[in-house]
Amino acid sequence: MVMEKAVKGQIRGEETRSRILQVAEQAFARGGYDTVGVAEICQLAGVSKGAFYHHFNSKESLFLELLDRWLSDLDQQLMRSGWAEISVQQGVDRLTALSGMVFQEAGDRYRIVLEFFNQAIRDPKIWQATIAHLRRYQDFFSQLIRSGMEQGLLKPVDPDHIGRMALSLGIGILLQSLLDPTYNEWGNVLLDSIRLILEGIAA
Amino acid sequence: MVMEKAVKGQIRGEETRSRILQVAEQAFARGGYDTVGVAEICQLAGVSKGAFYHHFNSKESLFLELLDRWLSDLDQQLMRSGWAEISVQQGVDRLTALSGMVFQEAGDRYRIVLEFFNQAIRDPKIWQATIAHLRRYQDFFSQLIRSGMEQGLLKPVDPDHIGRMALSLGIGILLQSLLDPTYNEWGNVLLDSIRLILEGIAA
Repeated sequence: MVMEKAVKGQIRGEETRSRILQVAEQAFARGGYDTVGVAEICQLAGVSKGAFYHHFNSKESLFLELLDRWLSDLDQQLMRSGWAEISVQQGVDRLTALSGMVFQEAGDRYRIVLEFFNQAIRDPKIWQATIAHLRRYQDFFSQLIRSGMEQGLLKPVDPDHIGRMALSLGIGILLQSLLDPTYNEWGNVLLDSIRLILEGIAA
Repeated sequence: MVMEKAVKGQIRGEETRSRILQVAEQAFARGGYDTVGVAEICQLAGVSKGAFYHHFNSKESLFLELLDRWLSDLDQQLMRSGWAEISVQQGVDRLTALSGMVFQEAGDRYRIVLEFFNQAIRDPKIWQATIAHLRRYQDFFSQLIRSGMEQGLLKPVDPDHIGRMALSLGIGILLQSLLDPTYNEWGNVLLDSIRLILEGIAA
């Protein structure tokens, strides 16, 4: 019985935590990180300040967890193994599926990306977390290029520059798709771009 | 004498206007558009609220003027005529000079770009202005591609997709260079990217 209560308590705790994250994401996306305080998040989530601080050290740490959550789905798909062993066409197919996933996400999730960039300039902790993620993605793309070169599939290029180029494209398209959602070809712009880059650097 | 006074008054007016724009740009970049009010801008510029509203209808209209000012230098270089008549190599040279100009700008000017994106999601007037500028740049790049295709210099591609790709690259590199200014190769990443795209679509 005691055990059951503990489990139920844990589940309730997870639900509370998850609800706080959800309403905070929506509130930050709508109003901006600066203007939304812990009190407002508590009110929207229907929890006490005590419950909030039981789950999160600060608004900042909640924000950083939102960043991690936002990227975790993308990471799971992007970082799965086997990239080095597949053909260029298979790589394009994988990225096609991935971009479909990203661009089908709800609009609010994009807005929070912009908030991450925005706060990263002002808050050193958020900057560190954001830059660490960016560099991780850059490295991922650079490694892909390097591995393609080693296998003789790609021309000798600067893997670092191409890695940063790929990430820049992704970020630029993401931001524009957020601002101009009535244009429904953003996914295809990304795919055409990937194809063009791959053709350009194919051996 | 009266004439002289009027001229002096006009010059003083221009100086005031220019000072307000300058301190507002720095304040928005540092603190964010939402948190900086007209009162703070007046205090920083050393002007009365009356003087502020003599020059600007609102904080929003001041912000829109900052956007126009930020883009006007870029526009002058980018929109000058003769793109259609020059060779691909000459085009790359032009863009090289241009990217040198953009990446040598002071850091604060980048921050304001992020503020434009950020406010565009929330404020319909700022959204309209931002999206109009984005579409103008997209059209510019698309026209370049179209013209290259008509001259038989480029393979048949989707000029609209490539135009958006070029702009996405520029935006993505700009944002990353803002976040990661210790990396001093951003200008070269952009140039390598331009070269790669041009090689990929050259006939």
